[in-house]
Amino acid sequence: MNGLELHKLAARLYPICRSITGPGVRETLAILQETIPLTVESVPSGTPVFDWVVPNEWTVREAWLADRKGNRLVDFKNHNLHLLNYSEPFCGIVSRADLDAHLFSLPDQPDAIPYRTSYYRKEWGFCLTENQRASLTESEYEVSIDTELTAGVFNYGELLIPGRVQDEILISTHICHPSLANDNLSGIVVALETARRLLATPPNYSVRFVFVPGTIGAITWLARNQTKLSSIHHALVLTGLGVGNTFHYKQSRSGNAAIDRVTAHVLQTSGSRYQIEPFVPYGYDERQYNSPGILLDAGCLTRAPYGTYPEYHTSLDNLHFLQAEALEESTELVGSVITALGARQTFRNRFPFGEPQLGKRGLYAANPAENLTFLWILNLSDGTNSLDDIAARSGISLADLEVAARRLLDAGLIETAADFPCESAVNK
Amino acid sequence: MNGLELHKLAARLYPICRSITGPGVRETLAILQETIPLTVESVPSGTPVFDWVVPNEWTVREAWLADRKGNRLVDFKNHNLHLLNYSEPFCGIVSRADLDAHLFSLPDQPDAIPYRTSYYRKEWGFCLTENQRASLTESEYEVSIDTELTAGVFNYGELLIPGRVQDEILISTHICHPSLANDNLSGIVVALETARRLLATPPNYSVRFVFVPGTIGAITWLARNQTKLSSIHHALVLTGLGVGNTFHYKQSRSGNAAIDRVTAHVLQTSGSRYQIEPFVPYGYDERQYNSPGILLDAGCLTRAPYGTYPEYHTSLDNLHFLQAEALEESTELVGSVITALGARQTFRNRFPFGEPQLGKRGLYAANPAENLTFLWILNLSDGTNSLDDIAARSGISLADLEVAARRLLDAGLIETAADFPCESAVNK
Amino acid sequence: MNGLELHKLAARLYPICRSITGPGVRETLAILQETIPLTVESVPSGTPVFDWVVPNEWTVREAWLADRKGNRLVDFKNHNLHLLNYSEPFCGIVSRADLDAHLFSLPDQPDAIPYRTSYYRKEWGFCLTENQRASLTESEYEVSIDTELTAGVFNYGELLIPGRVQDEILISTHICHPSLANDNLSGIVVALETARRLLATPPNYSVRFVFVPGTIGAITWLARNQTKLSSIHHALVLTGLGVGNTFHYKQSRSGNAAIDRVTAHVLQTSGSRYQIEPFVPYGYDERQYNSPGILLDAGCLTRAPYGTYPEYHTSLDNLHFLQAEALEESTELVGSVITALGARQTFRNRFPFGEPQLGKRGLYAANPAENLTFLWILNLSDGTNSLDDIAARSGISLADLEVAARRLLDAGLIETAADFPCESAVNK
Repeated sequence: MNGLELHKLAARLYPICRSITGPGVRETLAILQETIPLTVESVPSGTPVFDWVVPNEWTVREAWLADRKGNRLVDFKNHNLHLLNYSEPFCGIVSRADLDAHLFSLPDQPDAIPYRTSYYRKEWGFCLTENQRASLTESEYEVSIDTELTAGVFNYGELLIPGRVQDEILISTHICHPSLANDNLSGIVVALETARRLLATPPNYSVRFVFVPGTIGAITWLARNQTKLSSIHHALVLTGLGVGNTFHYKQSRSGNAAIDRVTAHVLQTSGSRYQIEPFVPYGYDERQYNSPGILLDAGCLTRAPYGTYPEYHTSLDNLHFLQAEALEESTELVGSVITALGARQTFRNRFPFGEPQLGKRGLYAANPAENLTFLWILNLSDGTNSLDDIAARSGISLADLEVAARRLLDAGLIETAADFPCESAVNK
Repeated sequence: MNGLELHKLAARLYPICRSITGPGVRETLAILQETIPLTVESVPSGTPVFDWVVPNEWTVREAWLADRKGNRLVDFKNHNLHLLNYSEPFCGIVSRADLDAHLFSLPDQPDAIPYRTSYYRKEWGFCLTENQRASLTESEYEVSIDTELTAGVFNYGELLIPGRVQDEILISTHICHPSLANDNLSGIVVALETARRLLATPPNYSVRFVFVPGTIGAITWLARNQTKLSSIHHALVLTGLGVGNTFHYKQSRSGNAAIDRVTAHVLQTSGSRYQIEPFVPYGYDERQYNSPGILLDAGCLTRAPYGTYPEYHTSLDNLHFLQAEALEESTELVGSVITALGARQTFRNRFPFGEPQLGKRGLYAANPAENLTFLWILNLSDGTNSLDDIAARSGISLADLEVAARRLLDAGLIETAADFPCESAVNK
Repeated sequence: MNGLELHKLAARLYPICRSITGPGVRETLAILQETIPLTVESVPSGTPVFDWVVPNEWTVREAWLADRKGNRLVDFKNHNLHLLNYSEPFCGIVSRADLDAHLFSLPDQPDAIPYRTSYYRKEWGFCLTENQRASLTESEYEVSIDTELTAGVFNYGELLIPGRVQDEILISTHICHPSLANDNLSGIVVALETARRLLATPPNYSVRFVFVPGTIGAITWLARNQTKLSSIHHALVLTGLGVGNTFHYKQSRSGNAAIDRVTAHVLQTSGSRYQIEPFVPYGYDERQYNSPGILLDAGCLTRAPYGTYPEYHTSLDNLHFLQAEALEESTELVGSVITALGARQTFRNRFPFGEPQLGKRGLYAANPAENLTFLWILNLSDGTNSLDDIAARSGISLADLEVAARRLLDAGLIETAADFPCESAVNK
């Protein structure tokens, strides 16, 4: 899919009322399943996940605010941002004064509907433009919020694309925002298209995609997959990739992980404008992946960081705001990072005591340069040096090293460096 | 106690004949007990302590040198420096020529009595001014040294001031010098007043004070307290704090321990003149605390380093030499170091898997800056980062971090990082 | 032996037909045994050694190429380089065209016989000058190669010279080249003379010499001596030490091992021209010693690196090429490196808890500088600091530190730092 097609997909997903639970999440994941074989997981409400508990499921049937004549002035049907996300049900006549505490608008952006949530504090409310709010001058209004918060399930999507090795890169994007285009849909479509391309051309690393509701989704996935964490060597959170002309890469907590060095290198050679930013424990799900008990080395790639643009978390973050070219360029860049990480695979010499005998395996080359390439890989493959590292030390091109490493792998002289036995490490 | 009161206390301690053992040490410790609840330990002579043995106890009844007419020319009663410290007993008529090997004076400082000891080699002798020595022109003199070197006890004082946590700072000062004011009494009174202030306002770290005879005292304490060493995170030797206008901080053996960094920082922001000096395995008891089997990370704070001033180890290091203001300023600075070390307490996130849920604990703040403060502490509290470190990385003020850390501690989200279980680690 | 005597010994070894196995190796080792008590090891053909197998033994009775009139045109008897090393037996009449694939000459060096081997691929052949080859214009030739490749033994020589401590330096040189003077004989005679001198004046470190056939010899030695590797702290490969005016030191894989620092320092202060070169996994047996499962920290000292001079691996690398002065200078330099490594010995304070009591051992000096020297050694001797390191940190001269360290060793206060108990560590 090119940028225009990704924009078209985003347009299809845009009207759906997503939240951290509920039918909107399932509808979104079902649309993604048309393109990639995503597994949709269901976790019952009430399930403990680390310090959290999976919340009740939220369903919206309708929600409106009307004057006493029955004119619906603010209606969820018109824009799903109008309803406070996770609003509890409420029906009744409310005085204008009492209503005010339940209204959310932006005085500085009088034409924008804000996006507000109240997942963990029971509340009802409407989000509306400042202009709408100003027009509510009567003394009483009728409120009808027909929502439900009941035990149900929590959903997220997951897809593991097997690479040459079982070691993994984790790509995570959030799927819990309703009609917000850059913040949410851009990450979803870029991740989807990245997965589709990798299915066509399998990568070196296996790549695991998770499409999760923010915070609680990442925490739920982590809590249910603790035994998988040791296989994940790099993680990247995708979000806000559909606008702007500058990439922002936020480093992992360590600031010097492979994902940090590789992404910086890819950006540097990409020709794109970019900025590298240090880790801050705020923002998107990199917060969870970089928590001190998890330490997944997760960076975050965006073009419009958390809270830095006026359209952020308002109805102005819409399909007009979203740029097809940005989506396309972002997808390319994510692909380059995955390729570059794969080229970084480290190996372990299986015959580290002296040199193995190349001749008996048909690897002793007439060409001394070719022998030297084998010997450098054998000498430095102790699980810590990637082909990049070997290239830097030996002066041999990455391309030549890749050819030689493949031959050494095929001959069983080196293995991919991982915590599981060689044979099971290589996907077949 | 302000500087003048500390000087007054020093004046009271000044005439006492201290040594590494004996009644002078006990008298000194008893005076300190009037102000702080010091425990006085007694170790029998002959007790092996690492490579050493606790020596016999030394008692002086009287000691004088007289001419044959009975005129007492040099008398211990006049100045306790006159007697070679640890002098063995001797009585008899001695020729001027034989006497000479038992006399100690300073040709370059003809009015000063030197301070000399002979703890481990049996010897008798007198210390006197060069002028006195020159006046000894007769052919014979009478010597009467009524001392005793017999099995007894070795004493030192110890006080543990419980802080918020059981982890400790060790403050050590020597108490074995007789009438020497800066070298000995200044450290004693500064340590005493520091302890008194901490008893009034408990610190974060627990602070252990040891008032020990030099070398053998530190070694004895170490030998008897090996199981306590792992709780001591920082150590500071106090000495020579009563004169001069420049602080000298001698670094620990590592040169980059927390005590080194914190003291340097405190000095830097103190407005005082100061010098940082590298570790040398000479000087005061930091020698023992930094020995390769102990490695306590001990710095030494002084204003007049070992052997660098003419009054050093002579009768000129007296009460006129000692400056009240220096004692006061030194006490302030030591207090600042202890406070700064306490602010350096590191913590451990008790919910390190993803972020803990702040909302259900009433910690989710309306103010994003406050939330971010919580999140930085939670993210970096893996037992290695102090609040200072977190301040440096996050740009958040130490004051704000302290408030937030206290709230996280109270909520049970973090614990102080120590080698013992959280509940017992915190003193109650 | 001076340079001329070493050259004379090389002249005696020069005509012998060495290879990786066979009588030439044994004859060579027997001549070395006249000077040093070398142990000659025999390993049966077929023995597995890591990834390799000890090859069959090669014996040459005669080998010649003659015209049909019986004129022997190329004869092993005239120069042992004429026969392809490890040539299989062959007898018969061969057309000039078929013969060509079995001839090896150097078009660019028409007067030189090349040195060629075929250890692991069965082949027969002759090496000859380009001029000889050009003169072979008849249509048929008679070939007679009377060699044998049968189960036998593989030999190498080994000598351990006990030093003050059991920790070892490994000196390795290859002995598998037939009539090649610089590449092979120079290393052999320099290593031999180095051993002879150390037998006369025992070193601090024990020094193990191995005279091994290249590659398979080092691998065989390593495979049979794995338990000894932990005692080897430094390794040096000697080769090509008989020509040129510039030393080349090729660093170990780490590039910062003690052997690298010490050899660089020795070269720097030697007055000789020299070059330091980074590790490359090609060259001589440092390849094996630096393999990732072995990691012996092996450097390689040469004056004419691998393949960089036109005489390399040709009949021009002969006794005229070899310089007596170069052999002498090289022997001196290797001795200096061994001495400097020995001076690098690290120690461990046996009384690391506080300071040991110097006085009771007669080590408490009147001179404070002498005491300080003792204290620096005691303080830093935790097994990681050499006297060089202590000199650098304390500013005390290496000479003073050596005197003091010897006294502390004699007093039992420090021990040489090694992985075995002190008493057994010191050779008696």
